[in-house]
Amino acid sequence: MGNWKLTLAYDGTTFHGWQVQPGLQTVQGNLQAALARITGESLLPQGSGRTDSGVHALGQVASFQLQAPIPAENLQRALNRTLPPAIRVLSAQLVLDSFHARHGATAKTYEYRIFRGELCSPFLAPYIHPCRWPLNMDLLHQSAAQVLGEHDFLSLAASDADLQSRSEETEPRSTIRSIFSNSWTEEPGDLLLYRVRGNGFLHHMVRNLVGTMLEIARGQFPPGSMTTILAARSRSAAGPTAPAKGLFLHSVEYSE
Amino acid sequence: MGNWKLTLAYDGTTFHGWQVQPGLQTVQGNLQAALARITGESLLPQGSGRTDSGVHALGQVASFQLQAPIPAENLQRALNRTLPPAIRVLSAQLVLDSFHARHGATAKTYEYRIFRGELCSPFLAPYIHPCRWPLNMDLLHQSAAQVLGEHDFLSLAASDADLQSRSEETEPRSTIRSIFSNSWTEEPGDLLLYRVRGNGFLHHMVRNLVGTMLEIARGQFPPGSMTTILAARSRSAAGPTAPAKGLFLHSVEYSE
Repeated sequence: MGNWKLTLAYDGTTFHGWQVQPGLQTVQGNLQAALARITGESLLPQGSGRTDSGVHALGQVASFQLQAPIPAENLQRALNRTLPPAIRVLSAQLVLDSFHARHGATAKTYEYRIFRGELCSPFLAPYIHPCRWPLNMDLLHQSAAQVLGEHDFLSLAASDADLQSRSEETEPRSTIRSIFSNSWTEEPGDLLLYRVRGNGFLHHMVRNLVGTMLEIARGQFPPGSMTTILAARSRSAAGPTAPAKGLFLHSVEYSE
Repeated sequence: MGNWKLTLAYDGTTFHGWQVQPGLQTVQGNLQAALARITGESLLPQGSGRTDSGVHALGQVASFQLQAPIPAENLQRALNRTLPPAIRVLSAQLVLDSFHARHGATAKTYEYRIFRGELCSPFLAPYIHPCRWPLNMDLLHQSAAQVLGEHDFLSLAASDADLQSRSEETEPRSTIRSIFSNSWTEEPGDLLLYRVRGNGFLHHMVRNLVGTMLEIARGQFPPGSMTTILAARSRSAAGPTAPAKGLFLHSVEYSE
């Protein structure tokens, strides 16, 4: 009997998100099926949080308990043999019984990839949001500075009715989160990257941050609007939700 | 009225190959539909040759005639707006009336990508053939040397009944082709690349070259077998067909 921690990468293109759903291809569902096939045990692996349909992961973390004793290397290898190539187990580790992928997460980092060029390679297209508008980089940097620290991010949370049930942390249901760092950087290949690290993120929060900052940077909001948008505590005050395909869950951190 | 040459890149993963087929997503079919939508003209763009289901292209060439006068830049932009992101028009040029993408091709270059590592990124998986067997690089280099030049490649042509109708050049139906250059190189990221340039390739020829050379390099054939395999003039003398997803049509050359 052991408690396991997996680190996973996946291409979200063909999955209906992380969470298991009857009749649909999901990452959690594939992982559950692979574990059942390898160990014969029926369990639901817990993720650090859900990722939406089309969102990718470079370092999602999952945890679960297994009855069968199995060397970590063998479990990783067997999972990678059983899972589709679009999901890879980067590491498998036996951890303390107290470890839980969602409850124990102390920080998460997301990356959002925007393509600024005219002609996007077909091999890159599923992993970027193309944005050809002129963007004022200073306004992007300013917006990032304005969201740094602890804020009520209600304006940037999904406005769907099931918000509470879909927020990553169901207790407490606060919409206050802390952003530890966030930055916009221009990279080779006409890429513009947004990286954000925080203690937790509401449903759609990163995509709404990106969609809103892009609108500010192209002049659709007055300069410096991010502060007033946060203060409004209303989804309608913010910009649109950036597409899922540009978003990567980069990594999840734990204190144990 | 003008004769057009397009250079195209595409991710073959989701297409049923190049050639138009009723009810199926193909590259030629998408291009035909995009041209019809933009110009209102009904035509079938000719490719330099067919690519099979799952095969990718970095520089496929197509040609067709249009009645409508249209600046090249506008045609390229309109096509890229209309086509799915998995197909990109890298260039559009007005060319001499005598230009024909298939009949005029003087050389083609293909690249085949093999992944040698243990853990393949989910973002790379659709574009490589994973091969973990120990491979003797000297035998790969020797096999490449043995196929260089003009040979009858019948042993490496698809053995399917429709070989003649599917070979790239229907006239003449010879199975003699010239390989101008070919090489195996180890690249960063646990990649092993095969590049081959020749005056034309039979159906499945590159994938059969790769599949056969890999079998020689892992000791499934006696060293130096490529010469005897070619001499046998029989598909059953050669190795298996390597998977489509590792193959890229790199470029097509013309004398005009």
